[in-house]
Amino acid sequence: MDGYRTKPRSSEHFDGLRGYHRGIMAAALKPRLLLGPGPSNVHPRVLEAMAQPLVGHLDPQFLELLDEVQALLRPLFGTENPMTLPLSATGSAGMEACLVNLLEPGDAVVVGVAGVFGNRMCDVAQRAGARVTRVETEPGTPLDASAMGDAIDRTQPRVVAFVHAETSTGVCQPVEEIAERARRAGALVVLDCVTSLGGLPLNLDAWGIDAAYSGTQKCLSCPPGLSPATFSPRALARVAERETPVQSWYLDLALLGNYFGGNRVYHHTAPISAIYALAEGLRRIHDEGMELREQRHRQAADALIEGLAPMGFRPLVENDHRLPMLTTLRLPEAIIERGEASLRTTLLERYSIEVGGGLGDLAGQIWRIGLMGENARLIHVEALINALRHELQ
Amino acid sequence: MDGYRTKPRSSEHFDGLRGYHRGIMAAALKPRLLLGPGPSNVHPRVLEAMAQPLVGHLDPQFLELLDEVQALLRPLFGTENPMTLPLSATGSAGMEACLVNLLEPGDAVVVGVAGVFGNRMCDVAQRAGARVTRVETEPGTPLDASAMGDAIDRTQPRVVAFVHAETSTGVCQPVEEIAERARRAGALVVLDCVTSLGGLPLNLDAWGIDAAYSGTQKCLSCPPGLSPATFSPRALARVAERETPVQSWYLDLALLGNYFGGNRVYHHTAPISAIYALAEGLRRIHDEGMELREQRHRQAADALIEGLAPMGFRPLVENDHRLPMLTTLRLPEAIIERGEASLRTTLLERYSIEVGGGLGDLAGQIWRIGLMGENARLIHVEALINALRHELQ
Repeated sequence: MDGYRTKPRSSEHFDGLRGYHRGIMAAALKPRLLLGPGPSNVHPRVLEAMAQPLVGHLDPQFLELLDEVQALLRPLFGTENPMTLPLSATGSAGMEACLVNLLEPGDAVVVGVAGVFGNRMCDVAQRAGARVTRVETEPGTPLDASAMGDAIDRTQPRVVAFVHAETSTGVCQPVEEIAERARRAGALVVLDCVTSLGGLPLNLDAWGIDAAYSGTQKCLSCPPGLSPATFSPRALARVAERETPVQSWYLDLALLGNYFGGNRVYHHTAPISAIYALAEGLRRIHDEGMELREQRHRQAADALIEGLAPMGFRPLVENDHRLPMLTTLRLPEAIIERGEASLRTTLLERYSIEVGGGLGDLAGQIWRIGLMGENARLIHVEALINALRHELQ
Repeated sequence: MDGYRTKPRSSEHFDGLRGYHRGIMAAALKPRLLLGPGPSNVHPRVLEAMAQPLVGHLDPQFLELLDEVQALLRPLFGTENPMTLPLSATGSAGMEACLVNLLEPGDAVVVGVAGVFGNRMCDVAQRAGARVTRVETEPGTPLDASAMGDAIDRTQPRVVAFVHAETSTGVCQPVEEIAERARRAGALVVLDCVTSLGGLPLNLDAWGIDAAYSGTQKCLSCPPGLSPATFSPRALARVAERETPVQSWYLDLALLGNYFGGNRVYHHTAPISAIYALAEGLRRIHDEGMELREQRHRQAADALIEGLAPMGFRPLVENDHRLPMLTTLRLPEAIIERGEASLRTTLLERYSIEVGGGLGDLAGQIWRIGLMGENARLIHVEALINALRHELQ
């Protein structure tokens, strides 16, 4: 007898839920000002684009839109890589895609660890069977390019990987110097651009980066769910020469290339609505231009630091290495004593403003305040300063 | 010098695109009636829910909504598994999640192969290092439960995996008989419910299924991008006993459990907007009830087969094993001669109706017509019949 002929035993479950589900309607969600480490607020035009009726993932209309998304992503990454695509999962899957395609079991990899996301890279690379050399730095400080260089020279790795904008500490890493050392040793370079894409100008081709990934919910100000990524011809050649299959079918670049590479042969069903949103978000960035956009991020971060200084917040990161879209601030003693988590709850409940707490060793010591994409505006900085002033008086 | 201090070289790329991006606006997309193998059309209320402003993935409001989604998924799967969750990627990643968590290198697995998606399971399992035994069947026919049973007895596999509703052939598989043989041999059972969830009543607990996954864009009539999945306590115990780490960090159940399992500790950023949509889609199913919904699917499929019979379309699958939400039809000679692909293009361009072609050996021989979720209505069946009548006269 076929499975579908069996009577549902689920009606009592449904009955048990009657009434329950009515209580929580998406329409009743209270809006938030999202000043944490992501997601950031999404422009109404992007939400509107996302809510357009669905078309099929092989519909010529959709494929044209996908072409446009890929074309708009390339200059944002600063690359001419044909293989530039929105991966169908969040930024962490983008990290996994880069590492599992470029690494084979036994390969050496050098990872710059300047926080949580560098740590995550080590974990992902180990699961791919790679021999991982970690080069660490104190939280809040940039990677030491010469320490990275030494590790590269010593281990002659297949891949060097690090995070451009460490979202756990607010540090911007010295990309060019590390990439140059890696290229000199013949290694491929993987760069995490989750928090930097759309907030800082990227020049991956000029920097010599072979694979990079981002997320949609940071400086692109789109909903989370996609990971824009790009792979150099050198990276693709490496994938073609692999002796073992890529361990992930879902993230296998050769298979993804059948759909995203031009032939548009079905691999998996692309997240159509999310790509509508991404297209509209990228158009907004294109219209603004990266020069203005970077300036807007820097102005907002400077105003934030200046405005919170009188309350005793001190930047964790030195000026030269500070990210403009994600500011980490050491908390004043008074807030640590009162309990920083309860103050964040108050901000959320009373002012509907979300800010981020510290991760790992920095938990309880710092806040992470994101002024990303649409949110990198003085009016939002003022809202936060006023709320804190009111609470701390 | 920090990477972000480098001048953008991307302005000329942006300039080169000026004007181009204006040409394709999401708002200008022509709506489609999606009668292919998925995606199906999404109800305006679901699109509206998706377009609500973003809140954070750790916001209590969002966590409450996530609780609701998990609570509504359980009866739909016919399970009480606490670990029932929307995975943050499409259905194919759901397949990968089930197999890479339950299989370790060297493990034996028996896969029922009744079409493209059974084949995909073999590929995914092989990439996890498993020893795969394939049990095949002719396209358009169900798996032979006793052949599956023999392979299970012979190989004593760790896992038995097959597809409930084979989207490439339109066949419904005999779930209970196969699951029973697998359980008797002590194997875990993985079931692909991508096309069945929300169209057929599922009873995973009663059937003895340990892991199952679906997609949002079929009978749930939500946008693609999430994979609802469920794991039995037996499956979780197996994961806890693994000797090797799960090869995917993104899909590692133990890590996912930190967020989706109740503690709500950050793992990756959940695709918030997609979960808004899923919540609203699940409420609609809940309000309709699965009994009515199944009936609606069966009536629509019957009307389709009856309406197209005079034009020479013949069902590929025998009545007893036919899926209600996805009908595969052998094409009349006249259409094969004229070129079935060009007729599908005509349907799309002239009537804005999408239907699916055959996959693999069935390409050019059959059409796959989906009447899924919102689309399982006589009015849509009539639209297709009228369009074809007009074109074939």
